[in-house]
Amino acid sequence: MILTVTPNPALDITYHLDHVRLGETNRVRSVAERAGGKGVNVARVLAQLGHAVTCSGFLGGPSGDDLVRLLDGSGVLQRWLPIEGQTRRTIAAVDSDGATLFNEPGPVLDQDAWAVLRDHVLSLTSPGDVVTVSGSTPRGTSPDDVGAFVSALRAHGLVTLVDTSGPHLLAAAKAGADVLKPNHHELRESTGAPDVLSGARRLLSSGAGAVVVSAGEDGVIAVTGTHAWQARPAEVLRGNPTGAGDAAVAALALACERVSGGIALEDALTAHLPDVVALSGAAVLAPEAGAVDLDAYRRMRAAITVEMIDAC
Amino acid sequence: MILTVTPNPALDITYHLDHVRLGETNRVRSVAERAGGKGVNVARVLAQLGHAVTCSGFLGGPSGDDLVRLLDGSGVLQRWLPIEGQTRRTIAAVDSDGATLFNEPGPVLDQDAWAVLRDHVLSLTSPGDVVTVSGSTPRGTSPDDVGAFVSALRAHGLVTLVDTSGPHLLAAAKAGADVLKPNHHELRESTGAPDVLSGARRLLSSGAGAVVVSAGEDGVIAVTGTHAWQARPAEVLRGNPTGAGDAAVAALALACERVSGGIALEDALTAHLPDVVALSGAAVLAPEAGAVDLDAYRRMRAAITVEMIDAC
Repeated sequence: MILTVTPNPALDITYHLDHVRLGETNRVRSVAERAGGKGVNVARVLAQLGHAVTCSGFLGGPSGDDLVRLLDGSGVLQRWLPIEGQTRRTIAAVDSDGATLFNEPGPVLDQDAWAVLRDHVLSLTSPGDVVTVSGSTPRGTSPDDVGAFVSALRAHGLVTLVDTSGPHLLAAAKAGADVLKPNHHELRESTGAPDVLSGARRLLSSGAGAVVVSAGEDGVIAVTGTHAWQARPAEVLRGNPTGAGDAAVAALALACERVSGGIALEDALTAHLPDVVALSGAAVLAPEAGAVDLDAYRRMRAAITVEMIDAC
Repeated sequence: MILTVTPNPALDITYHLDHVRLGETNRVRSVAERAGGKGVNVARVLAQLGHAVTCSGFLGGPSGDDLVRLLDGSGVLQRWLPIEGQTRRTIAAVDSDGATLFNEPGPVLDQDAWAVLRDHVLSLTSPGDVVTVSGSTPRGTSPDDVGAFVSALRAHGLVTLVDTSGPHLLAAAKAGADVLKPNHHELRESTGAPDVLSGARRLLSSGAGAVVVSAGEDGVIAVTGTHAWQARPAEVLRGNPTGAGDAAVAALALACERVSGGIALEDALTAHLPDVVALSGAAVLAPEAGAVDLDAYRRMRAAITVEMIDAC
């Protein structure tokens, strides 16, 4: 069983307009809403692939209710933790020149919110299940909260997969997350390391089990205590890169599920690296984040090569 | 009893930002939400003055739920008619240079929606009660819908007060609305008349009982079948003019209530004209639409003069 945690989900609202003018009244032509947040995207991709998946995280207010309604029928089982504040909205005002975005600050968590989420997630899972944690965190969250959360999941026998950035990424590494999935920018910023391999090794020496770095057109680099592999896409893709990292996490979650079936983490990761790259690419080709082009996924997967690039 | 109808209420959302940049991601510093729509403002002003008031209109979706929650505790009794679509949102992104507004198109009504609203409002009122109808209408509304609605209210013995524009204003006049309250721009646009008096008389000859025109710094001009009066403010006010017309409607609704007590409409209107002008001014001085500065209202009311400007 896979459960995706989105600490800071969002109601994503898109306005289509003829032309956005600053300082004026703009008549919106059409409105589209979707359930947003990186962990929500992970769950939607898994559901699209036909896998059972549960999502959780902090959710509140009328925009939270709206998110639940929008995700209804997607095949994702929703087990949100209700909070006092209101789930953030994002507004994208799109015209022929591009998109102007407004990101709300979102709720502020109570001091015990992360402990309550921990108990909530533990009540939904059993040892051997896979839990992913993706994206930003609400205000009121410290890196220690993220570290303690990951530690508690691991102590419960869960396989943990974390996609975050900055001090939260370092805290997840120290807490011994099984797999970390930063992109190469996030890895450089959080570790200060000059290249992907040395950055990944800093996270491994902190305590992470494996680090899988998404690097755009260079594909994906997986680093464990003993080896490093790179999987490259066979095609250069044009499309919407938002959500590509989340599709990679979905593929990694499926790899992690095999670990609970008795396969070694390193073997599971290397076996699934073509899926990780192909599913990321298939997300680029889909019009919106949280969806993949399944035909492209199957076509690309066969043409992806995995290469060992380093051994310790 | 006064009931205010807002056919097209709105959830008004204000974003405060340091500086709005087109084509970029803008981090919102703070979010404020309020229940919006002209009839909602009328009801809030009446509640602030200590009068019992009920509000109704079409409401739907999570933004409708949000509006109900925001209006809770304001003293306004809410009796909305639930619809399938989602109540529109307005976003005002405010920075030091001013405000950029995004107005959602809002719901589309079913064909029988206005008949259902008619039955709903009739079930809430008794002959002699005052019903105001304010502002724009949702998509799917024809001028005939507005006319038939006003006719039905009048046939039920209700005193009707309509603040709208364009063909809807003309339809309300033909339906014999007791009082119409356009502003001078709306009056000119809808009737094509060159001045306030001739515009008002076109509406009267169509069937309206009286026309009260708000004219900004020139105050208010009331025109009946026999006379015309003008009430002018004693001060030039600086502030937020949004909602000033709604405060005028609130004062006119109180005048209309006296009609049901046996006073002639013309007498009630002329007696209340200083209130209409003072309450409009007190709305300009309040920071947000739907509120008035009560001290300023009492102070200004005493200094307002009413002058007969024409007799037929």
